[in-house]
Amino acid sequence: MSVSVPSNPDGTRFDDLHQILQQGGMRRAARMLNALQPAEIAHLLESLPPKERELAWNLVEAEYDGEVLTYLHDDVREHLIQLMDTGELVAAVGSLDTDDLADIFQDLPVAITQEVVNSLDQQRRDRLEKALSFPEDSAGGLMNTDTVTVRPEMTLDVVMRYLRRLKDGLPDITDNLIVVNRKGNYLGVLYLTDLVTHDPEDSVAEAMTLDIQAIPATWSAREVATRFEQHDLVTAPVIDEDGGLLGRITVDDVMDVIREEAEHQFMGQAGLSETEDMFAPVLLSARRRALWLGVNLLTAFLAAWVIGRFEATIQQVVALAVLMPVVASMGGIAGTQTLTLAIRGIAVGQLSIKNARWLLWKEMAVAGINSVIWALVVALIARLWFHDTNIALVIGAAISINLLAAAFSGAMLPLLLERFGIDPALAGGVILTTVTDVVGFLSFLGLATIFLL
Amino acid sequence: MSVSVPSNPDGTRFDDLHQILQQGGMRRAARMLNALQPAEIAHLLESLPPKERELAWNLVEAEYDGEVLTYLHDDVREHLIQLMDTGELVAAVGSLDTDDLADIFQDLPVAITQEVVNSLDQQRRDRLEKALSFPEDSAGGLMNTDTVTVRPEMTLDVVMRYLRRLKDGLPDITDNLIVVNRKGNYLGVLYLTDLVTHDPEDSVAEAMTLDIQAIPATWSAREVATRFEQHDLVTAPVIDEDGGLLGRITVDDVMDVIREEAEHQFMGQAGLSETEDMFAPVLLSARRRALWLGVNLLTAFLAAWVIGRFEATIQQVVALAVLMPVVASMGGIAGTQTLTLAIRGIAVGQLSIKNARWLLWKEMAVAGINSVIWALVVALIARLWFHDTNIALVIGAAISINLLAAAFSGAMLPLLLERFGIDPALAGGVILTTVTDVVGFLSFLGLATIFLL
Repeated sequence: MSVSVPSNPDGTRFDDLHQILQQGGMRRAARMLNALQPAEIAHLLESLPPKERELAWNLVEAEYDGEVLTYLHDDVREHLIQLMDTGELVAAVGSLDTDDLADIFQDLPVAITQEVVNSLDQQRRDRLEKALSFPEDSAGGLMNTDTVTVRPEMTLDVVMRYLRRLKDGLPDITDNLIVVNRKGNYLGVLYLTDLVTHDPEDSVAEAMTLDIQAIPATWSAREVATRFEQHDLVTAPVIDEDGGLLGRITVDDVMDVIREEAEHQFMGQAGLSETEDMFAPVLLSARRRALWLGVNLLTAFLAAWVIGRFEATIQQVVALAVLMPVVASMGGIAGTQTLTLAIRGIAVGQLSIKNARWLLWKEMAVAGINSVIWALVVALIARLWFHDTNIALVIGAAISINLLAAAFSGAMLPLLLERFGIDPALAGGVILTTVTDVVGFLSFLGLATIFLL
Repeated sequence: MSVSVPSNPDGTRFDDLHQILQQGGMRRAARMLNALQPAEIAHLLESLPPKERELAWNLVEAEYDGEVLTYLHDDVREHLIQLMDTGELVAAVGSLDTDDLADIFQDLPVAITQEVVNSLDQQRRDRLEKALSFPEDSAGGLMNTDTVTVRPEMTLDVVMRYLRRLKDGLPDITDNLIVVNRKGNYLGVLYLTDLVTHDPEDSVAEAMTLDIQAIPATWSAREVATRFEQHDLVTAPVIDEDGGLLGRITVDDVMDVIREEAEHQFMGQAGLSETEDMFAPVLLSARRRALWLGVNLLTAFLAAWVIGRFEATIQQVVALAVLMPVVASMGGIAGTQTLTLAIRGIAVGQLSIKNARWLLWKEMAVAGINSVIWALVVALIARLWFHDTNIALVIGAAISINLLAAAFSGAMLPLLLERFGIDPALAGGVILTTVTDVVGFLSFLGLATIFLL
């Protein structure tokens, strides 16, 4: 899918704001910004470089500040929080729902957190504590506590009268009311669509749906996302181990989970965090990148060391130095394909130790075919280039070996890393290319030493 | 986030089914499968290798076949469709909603499509035609036509009575009714939450929400996803250019869009399609992979050709052959970081030609810092290893040049490719590493030729 720039509403909006800010039209810029949804303001702020971002942030009305903060990536949020004084910050986050507050609570300066807690009434303080007691990436951490519950013996007519008396109306994204028993245990849900289509004299028990299983608070965010996707859910109730209703998860938070997981996978491959700010300060970026470059330098020198073992061979047959990157590169590419397939499989829960055997077998078979084809192609090109059949045979053999090694490592690495609690999306690529570089140089130069000298 | 295998419900399910199939417990396997949601069945089928997948597919009850097919990735769907005879296939897909039917219509064998069309009544045929008239990845292609509309002058009481008479109830995932005028033009939405909390004597006009903007059918799927994410939507109305209501988009389809876009980006980097079946037939996989390996072979030989220009230099200073992969590798890694950041920025609509200047400036500054640091580190290691200050100076300079070239290409390539209609997620990595390989070898061996000989 490609972005069609002209029709992209964000693009236009960015242009407008950028132009207005440049011309110093602060009042117009403020009007434009504050007419947007908090999520849109956050999105726009992230696409501005630091100076203009600070300028724009000061134009956002104080009443939106808190909500905008909840929509920002961690890095940008931290940057903007640093610009606010204690009073502003306490006012901004103090008015948030406790669930949203819990999401950004860890990012607040310690000095602020105590003040925020003090500003809450007892009920909100309890809720915040409860929300903070679950890991951020668990069902408990994702859940909101704004549930509206009904009891099975009520008639729909009574439910309607009860709803009309709710002083704040129903919470956003409510597709059902949660049915609980006297003890607050989860029984089922009453969809609003059923509430409005059934006879008002029917009881909740008659109109309710029993086949929505509640989600245990301990499930991982990934499991929650899978459940939502497979059951086309809009909201789902969350329960404790005794079946007691704790809260509910809404689909907007699940979309964020899917987006973040995807960015984690994509950015992780390059050693970047999914929260990386495109316009992060130069020094901060340089420091973060340096770590990744350092890790890779080690692996590059490992490969160089392998080559170094064969200096004498290269001295005699310089063509080897010319061709050796081809062997390493083909292995790296082929291995990355297998690795990518395996990482995706693990991420969507379709690959585990149970069916890894088949993937390994299939990938080895694919590599077997490709290793023959590309050994022949590369050997032929090498023969034409250097007019040396022996070099051609050696590079062909090395390519074959490296493609097979690449498939093996690509299929096995991710599961192995998982097993040791290492994130394959982050470490997989580095380790894989180290393997294919080392195997590539070793097999090519090793075979050359044996057969060419 | 890491997968905790034991608590993963899919993992257990896969184990169970796998074991039952192995023991030949067909009836038990069928019972287990058919108790699942169609999306879950699809997910499970995808995690089975071909033989067991076929076995399991035959156990799925005919009435679920159609829906399961809609949830499968293209490759797997094609595989299973080939196993069905015409009668089965027509029966399976003929009962689908026209919107779902439209989604898989292109994948059906031509012989079948005519038969399916013939089996539809006129109304469904018209709907199918309409659904097929929009590109798959547009708002029109995502939309369902199952809208329930009301008029502003109705009272809520009348709306409720109307809903109770709907013979099929309300469609799945209905959070609002769409308010249209006499001509069928979109006016606003009446949330069910407002319907049930307002006074029944109120009119629709009094209870409706006006600030949900309808989505034009021509919007791209990506724009639709952004709108849903930023406005926390559950459903959104879709209109034609005259404001006439065409249908609605539901959040479950939007989640699929987000997931597919993410997989496209992730898999595309390795030259894989996001619909790639983990257990695709070996020959098919080998053919597809071969294309990507071929493209990469060309770039590898381009790099080799560059090295070949310096054979005489390498002959005299073999240490160059040992160290040259380090220069190329550091450039590739640094460039990939910038490239990844830029591709993500474009994908989420936060990077365009308008703010690319800043990204370029920032990335060049980061590269400037890192190029100094790593030039020193690499030069020092080279000095210690080969006891040759000149080699150290040359490799330091080459690393610097390559890191700057990497940042420049990483930042500019994606936007340039977009401009020419080439998908940066697919082509970006290959082109980038070609640049960093060529610049790396050229600068290192070139400087060596000038200063070392």
